[in-house]
Amino acid sequence: MADKNISKRQLTDFFGSLLKKIQVRDDVAQYLIEGIIQASLRGVDSHGIRLFPHYLNGFEGGRLNKKPDYKFTSNALSTGKLDGDHAPGHAAGMEGMLKAIERAKESGIGAVVVYNSSHFGAAAYYALKAAEHDMIGLSFTHATAHVLPYGGMRPFLGNNPICLAAPCEGEGPFCLDMATTVATFNKVQQFREQGQKIPLGWGVDKDGRQTEDPNRLVSLFPIGNYKGFGLSMMVEILCAMLTGAPYGQNVSQMFGTPMNQQRKLGHFFVALRIDAFEEITVFKNRLKEMMDKLRQEPSLDPQKPVMAAGDPEKRCYAERVIKGIPVPASLLSHLNQLAANYHLPELTSLD
Amino acid sequence: MADKNISKRQLTDFFGSLLKKIQVRDDVAQYLIEGIIQASLRGVDSHGIRLFPHYLNGFEGGRLNKKPDYKFTSNALSTGKLDGDHAPGHAAGMEGMLKAIERAKESGIGAVVVYNSSHFGAAAYYALKAAEHDMIGLSFTHATAHVLPYGGMRPFLGNNPICLAAPCEGEGPFCLDMATTVATFNKVQQFREQGQKIPLGWGVDKDGRQTEDPNRLVSLFPIGNYKGFGLSMMVEILCAMLTGAPYGQNVSQMFGTPMNQQRKLGHFFVALRIDAFEEITVFKNRLKEMMDKLRQEPSLDPQKPVMAAGDPEKRCYAERVIKGIPVPASLLSHLNQLAANYHLPELTSLD
Repeated sequence: MADKNISKRQLTDFFGSLLKKIQVRDDVAQYLIEGIIQASLRGVDSHGIRLFPHYLNGFEGGRLNKKPDYKFTSNALSTGKLDGDHAPGHAAGMEGMLKAIERAKESGIGAVVVYNSSHFGAAAYYALKAAEHDMIGLSFTHATAHVLPYGGMRPFLGNNPICLAAPCEGEGPFCLDMATTVATFNKVQQFREQGQKIPLGWGVDKDGRQTEDPNRLVSLFPIGNYKGFGLSMMVEILCAMLTGAPYGQNVSQMFGTPMNQQRKLGHFFVALRIDAFEEITVFKNRLKEMMDKLRQEPSLDPQKPVMAAGDPEKRCYAERVIKGIPVPASLLSHLNQLAANYHLPELTSLD
Repeated sequence: MADKNISKRQLTDFFGSLLKKIQVRDDVAQYLIEGIIQASLRGVDSHGIRLFPHYLNGFEGGRLNKKPDYKFTSNALSTGKLDGDHAPGHAAGMEGMLKAIERAKESGIGAVVVYNSSHFGAAAYYALKAAEHDMIGLSFTHATAHVLPYGGMRPFLGNNPICLAAPCEGEGPFCLDMATTVATFNKVQQFREQGQKIPLGWGVDKDGRQTEDPNRLVSLFPIGNYKGFGLSMMVEILCAMLTGAPYGQNVSQMFGTPMNQQRKLGHFFVALRIDAFEEITVFKNRLKEMMDKLRQEPSLDPQKPVMAAGDPEKRCYAERVIKGIPVPASLLSHLNQLAANYHLPELTSLD
């Protein structure tokens, strides 16, 4: 069955009303919803509204805290640590990034770790927030171990993402948001749900053999072999070693573990004030110029122009803001079941 | 002809005496020599003593400034910009990293850009300096455009490296120092010098075809296609957009351009005080534990244990500090010709 397009507004209201009914605090609900809607608008469906039922289970099971009591501590002007008190990662993470932005305003750069957090969705959400403030934003999280070390046989680290956003003249920020693996595990999950094969080269099964079956895949290949794994380790150091969070194989599973089990994840955020280095207009104009030059480069396939990181997401965002977010039939029926359970109006398609 | 092993001490003295004869200021010579000797000891031969004749030509041709007048400016407590005044990148870069370390001592984190700099060798040199101070060090530089954008036909960005070092209990720091390409152009250069073929998959010739001939290779493949290129773009933003340096295809060539032409490169350095987040002993012990666990992972090939980033370099360092640095015959004869020209004692092998 074809996807139905549902408007951003309708989904936002629906999630908001539902989270209000289960007494999630407003600020917590707002960041969570903003984060998943933004991911879906940008076409990052693996990290978007698809996960709402999972987070809802988290609130109901006790994994996620509806009314977190954040604690921010700091022993230096430009740094700090935020205890996320098991809030959804979107909420704890955004609190952390906002602290980093505050500190960058004071001293040029702010670096904040968040601990006792949970799955934070797409890393872009936080870095893009810094870009709104004419800063460069960087965001990192560690995750469930799904990545094969170079030469190894089983997962050791998470598909730890790296994200940098920087404001650009005349268009949305440059935004690189990449997992350090060939594919993400959430994408594998999406193939499972849709009953599709995955391409060879994404990873291996429990015996270390490459597989096309998303249900058999347990370990993802890092990009560039030891390099991608090294990047994953870099992120683990920032997110687990600096926060005291469990690391590597001790990071809890996102799926398949009791929903009363807290994730205890760590994130790392940096906000860097551009005008501490360069005039902001000069920076934005030059970045725009570089991106346009890149896009004008001759391409191997004339049908596929060269793109900058984040270009597909920008294009998708522009489209979905108008046409709505495509919701697969199975997800739509799940959401409408929730609507019925919570006495909320059914979601209706824009088509 | 086999390589000859020359001691670290002898090479350091030789380079020092030679740079003194041509009146390179002591601090400038010291950082340059320390940087290239460290790279060679760590087995990063592409960025090590092999490049000494190139840097010497740089001093003599005017590309490199023997007596740079650094200017450090800052409008915020934790950030700053250093005008490298066309010093060798090793010297300007280390000045920049030391400023970042100073600022991190004050406020938890320091971020410093360097501009009007030149080739800085291996990025590890700077990040490892921060690790000596119980900080996490990050170092980045942009470089001559040799990297193919995903779907593109010709180089657009440099093989921009990413480096993070972090102190570890009971052994040298964790150190990831990776170019964002499958191989570095300096490594290609090394294959050229040794008359060897390069593996397929490193890059393409001027017509966009894969090649095994190091002399025909003009463009390197990024790791993970658009991901590696995105990382390269991230580094270009930090090193060129924040510094006002030329970017992408406008970055000057390292080789094949007149040696009176200044490079005008930009670098980006971060020093992050670990104790702003976690007790330093806890951090170091946990990092050691994580690295040891990784090394004990079952490996696909029992002869090839799983390694952490930087392990091959540590092993090489331990060996070469004792046995000396292997110098290829052609380089040794070049260096001994220089010894004769400058009335210095000939280099003698440890073998």
